[in-house]
Amino acid sequence: MARNAHPEVTERRILEAARELFTEKGYEKTSIQNIVDRLGNLSKGAIYHHFTSKEAILDKLNDTDWDYSQAARDRIMARTDLNGLEKMRELFKVTIDNKDHRKLNEVTIPLLDDPTTLASSLNFWAAELPKHWLPIIEEGMRDGSIPTEYPQEAAELISLLANYWLLTRFCPPTRAELRHRIQCLATMLNAINVPVFDDELIRQTCDFYAQLNAQNPEQTPHD
Amino acid sequence: MARNAHPEVTERRILEAARELFTEKGYEKTSIQNIVDRLGNLSKGAIYHHFTSKEAILDKLNDTDWDYSQAARDRIMARTDLNGLEKMRELFKVTIDNKDHRKLNEVTIPLLDDPTTLASSLNFWAAELPKHWLPIIEEGMRDGSIPTEYPQEAAELISLLANYWLLTRFCPPTRAELRHRIQCLATMLNAINVPVFDDELIRQTCDFYAQLNAQNPEQTPHD
Repeated sequence: MARNAHPEVTERRILEAARELFTEKGYEKTSIQNIVDRLGNLSKGAIYHHFTSKEAILDKLNDTDWDYSQAARDRIMARTDLNGLEKMRELFKVTIDNKDHRKLNEVTIPLLDDPTTLASSLNFWAAELPKHWLPIIEEGMRDGSIPTEYPQEAAELISLLANYWLLTRFCPPTRAELRHRIQCLATMLNAINVPVFDDELIRQTCDFYAQLNAQNPEQTPHD
Repeated sequence: MARNAHPEVTERRILEAARELFTEKGYEKTSIQNIVDRLGNLSKGAIYHHFTSKEAILDKLNDTDWDYSQAARDRIMARTDLNGLEKMRELFKVTIDNKDHRKLNEVTIPLLDDPTTLASSLNFWAAELPKHWLPIIEEGMRDGSIPTEYPQEAAELISLLANYWLLTRFCPPTRAELRHRIQCLATMLNAINVPVFDDELIRQTCDFYAQLNAQNPEQTPHD
């Protein structure tokens, strides 16, 4: 097969191999050579032809997962059988159920120890992620299922707290404490009339974070 | 006066001059030479004898203000005429009323654009600042004035949200939006039975953040 006859196929193969290796070995311990070895029939030069660095591969994987989330949101938004609140819960569940993304998250959490990565993640959670939630909250305001006075604040706080506060340094050591913390967030969101966390979603969210945090050796939740 | 006869006096003079200059000119635009010029009778070498860098001077100023906060907290904790909730409000007011610290804050907010400074501030807000609030919340739990089930979460969320969310990139552009956001925080804290933000403290907090944010040219609150 001529090189670049199907560049998008090659790119996808590189991404798939990198995702597997990042998940198996960790991001830091994976080298471009490992990716070459895994693929078998591609040179290091061919990989660098598609991606300037290992970091660029990770960025592309994150972009791919974000596109998947956006597409899932668009599908959910188009449904006519759900009100705004139900759509919001559905979007949480889709995020939680995306196992590939969870595995990538497990790999990238330790990278937040790097200040530049942390700062760019915080910017994303502050500037981009709230835009993902806000239209659903506004739909819930219109149909009466999310009668909040604080749509922008709720979108921001869900973005910030579900990512920064429930993960990283704030993360509590035991599963009981993790559940307590999610219950706290649920109670506060109920108070501003964004009752997205019902008992089922609290349980699912708790499972999701427990699995995520279990990959972080310094902060292993246990029962 | 012989050099180092009273090193603590010299150090205090350097800190006072630096605080004035940082406030007047901004931190980035202040040089060690500006501090030499302001003091008149000290050489650059004498300043470097006390502080290795301009950053070390800023760190020491922040330490000084933190010591002031800790001392204020200790005085408040020792009072027998206030319950836990009243002590918590009093500590907020002391922080808000410390004009020197507010001015230093105004100067340091733009520094949070630097990822390393942001990461170390976030670590402080996550690991240290909650310890400042937790004993007061626990006293309120004992005396019944703060009947919360979420003392640790409340201490963390107050630290994180009052610093990171009410300042920096999340900061809303108008004073009305700032007030709405503080009202949102108050409502959520009420829901977990930490009713620290009464109308008076909401007003005072709003004034405090409006003044702080007004110094940040990209995010000027206005009525």
